Amino acid sequence: MSNMPFHFDLLHSDRDARRGCLHTPHGTVETPAFMPVGTQGTIKGVDIGRVAETGAQMVLANTYHLHLRPGDEVVAQLGDLHGFMNWSKPILTDSGGFQVFSLADRSKVDEQGVKFRSHIDGSLVDLTPERSMAIQENLGADLIMAFDHVIALPNTPEAVADATWRSVRWAERCQKAHSRSDQLLLGIVQGGLDHALRRECADAMVAMDFGAYAVGGLSVGEPPEEMYAAIEATTPHLPNERLRYLMGVGKPEDLLEAVRRGIDLFDCVMPTRNGRNALVFTDDGPRRLKNAQYTLQSEPLEADCPCPACQHSRGYLRHLFQAKEMLGPVLASIHNLTYYQRLLAEAREAIEADAFEEFHARKQAGWDQGR
Amino acid sequence: MSNMPFHFDLLHSDRDARRGCLHTPHGTVETPAFMPVGTQGTIKGVDIGRVAETGAQMVLANTYHLHLRPGDEVVAQLGDLHGFMNWSKPILTDSGGFQVFSLADRSKVDEQGVKFRSHIDGSLVDLTPERSMAIQENLGADLIMAFDHVIALPNTPEAVADATWRSVRWAERCQKAHSRSDQLLLGIVQGGLDHALRRECADAMVAMDFGAYAVGGLSVGEPPEEMYAAIEATTPHLPNERLRYLMGVGKPEDLLEAVRRGIDLFDCVMPTRNGRNALVFTDDGPRRLKNAQYTLQSEPLEADCPCPACQHSRGYLRHLFQAKEMLGPVLASIHNLTYYQRLLAEAREAIEADAFEEFHARKQAGWDQGR
Repeated sequence: MSNMPFHFDLLHSDRDARRGCLHTPHGTVETPAFMPVGTQGTIKGVDIGRVAETGAQMVLANTYHLHLRPGDEVVAQLGDLHGFMNWSKPILTDSGGFQVFSLADRSKVDEQGVKFRSHIDGSLVDLTPERSMAIQENLGADLIMAFDHVIALPNTPEAVADATWRSVRWAERCQKAHSRSDQLLLGIVQGGLDHALRRECADAMVAMDFGAYAVGGLSVGEPPEEMYAAIEATTPHLPNERLRYLMGVGKPEDLLEAVRRGIDLFDCVMPTRNGRNALVFTDDGPRRLKNAQYTLQSEPLEADCPCPACQHSRGYLRHLFQAKEMLGPVLASIHNLTYYQRLLAEAREAIEADAFEEFHARKQAGWDQGR
Repeated sequence: MSNMPFHFDLLHSDRDARRGCLHTPHGTVETPAFMPVGTQGTIKGVDIGRVAETGAQMVLANTYHLHLRPGDEVVAQLGDLHGFMNWSKPILTDSGGFQVFSLADRSKVDEQGVKFRSHIDGSLVDLTPERSMAIQENLGADLIMAFDHVIALPNTPEAVADATWRSVRWAERCQKAHSRSDQLLLGIVQGGLDHALRRECADAMVAMDFGAYAVGGLSVGEPPEEMYAAIEATTPHLPNERLRYLMGVGKPEDLLEAVRRGIDLFDCVMPTRNGRNALVFTDDGPRRLKNAQYTLQSEPLEADCPCPACQHSRGYLRHLFQAKEMLGPVLASIHNLTYYQRLLAEAREAIEADAFEEFHARKQAGWDQGR
């Protein structure tokens, strides 16, 4: 092990699936790993002690949201994100690029950066690669992301290429602007669904020698097979000894498909967002808790799940949603977060045992059966 | 100790303040005690493990709500309220009378009972003393309440007397109808703010020999002094060796004023309802977390509070409310529930030490100072 503040140990490979270990100043993350999303500095509805109990090793927070409210200087004064959230383990912040694209009113992109109006109060905000770095340094996460130009898909080849190469130029500016040695800056490989462009972008990013790499711009509505193909067109061009993070993905089956293609790290709002909407993940596929069939079911969602939701009957959980009780979304979110953590823990074991393909097939069969 | 399923041990008195111990088939409650309110079978927003961590020994659930949704037979099939809520300690259910009064559409009272339309779907429901007993037997709480006729205050003396004596007659019907020996039925003393009527009602209830007694019909908008006077007009006429429960009360200062007048048990929605609205209780009086003064405060709500909210800064809690994050209501509710439990635990210690008056004066001085 190196004495650098960050180090990724690739412990074992099973074909392209990787079992690793990321060392950070706030502790270690066993990979493949899943990060719960704490958009505004909170995993929605779940207190941070319960988040830790799900098995989460690292969480994600959003630069755009926290910059606008309460402000990154406020977060810095309240002990940076670790103190603010009371989470002493690793944290990752995104760059703000995606939320500017998806949430801001009237955003305007030029080579300098993005000007947009806040979705909260309409105030004018200016985000540049340098500004994103300064904000992320204030927020104080362990892993931070280069500021990128996110565009809608499908789009013209020219627009995709233009945004991709602008993201590369911005990534260089991020590297120059970033000054904290206790933060690891990740470069993001863009390129839409164009495999040649993905490879060119990966080569350009690798030439800049980032400490870890992300695959961005996916899971924006394209069919799963095209997403898997785009991952497959990217990961072989990333250095084997560096962490690979697939941004914003996805369903349980997407995670295993991506692990199979060499991805180490994930984040997604799906466990919490779906939980709030009464959809829970299980090894027999997703269940819609509002369905009448659950009214009198006294068994838990999953017999072997240790989460607080699975201390209750399905009938009770359904009742909470029918009665519009806050505890329904809370418990379903905790179950889903626990499900994701258990899935990744099992995947890690399977890779160690050179049995990932069998594990994957078994899980997929269970999910398919429940459809 | 008796080998009856229920027994109240009066351990110590400090003037009229009482330190006791209620034994039930689901365990023991140290009194004076406060019950969190789980209206629909959930303490709003707080998972049952966290409820236990606040120090709560017994919780309350509402007959009216659970009868309408999911239905008391459903609760019975899912393991009665103990299994349904996953709470193995004592539970109390109210009779439904108060919610019929406050929530139902177009309720019509006659000597037989109350006919009303459900606030959920407008369906016609018929509630009688016998029906309330049957529902509460299905729900399976340890302590259950006689079905009473609740009216608005102020009201004419005739209307108050009429409702009071009807409640006495209904209490007799409840005694006859109630069949489960593992449930303790409480008689409720009504009488509005009429001290003579309170005493007459108490005498009538005591003549019926209930295992424990409640003081009902208070905290419905009258000034605190009138409420305290009505308690004082009631408790001396209740047997010393039986538990006394003041229904639906109240603020921290109300609790201590009532303990001082011989009350042993409380319930109130205030800790959770106020918590959802960003109002938190402290020894320096209530704090409104949305106030701008908390933006940069890095200290917890209370330095010596062990609750999960007090693992965070005031600035973080304020941010959660500003950002309309569910975790704000959740954490503020947990803090308030913890505050109430700690207050009652301190009151129990003070009574044991014959120092309740000094304790009361000290707490009141802190609350007054924060105003």
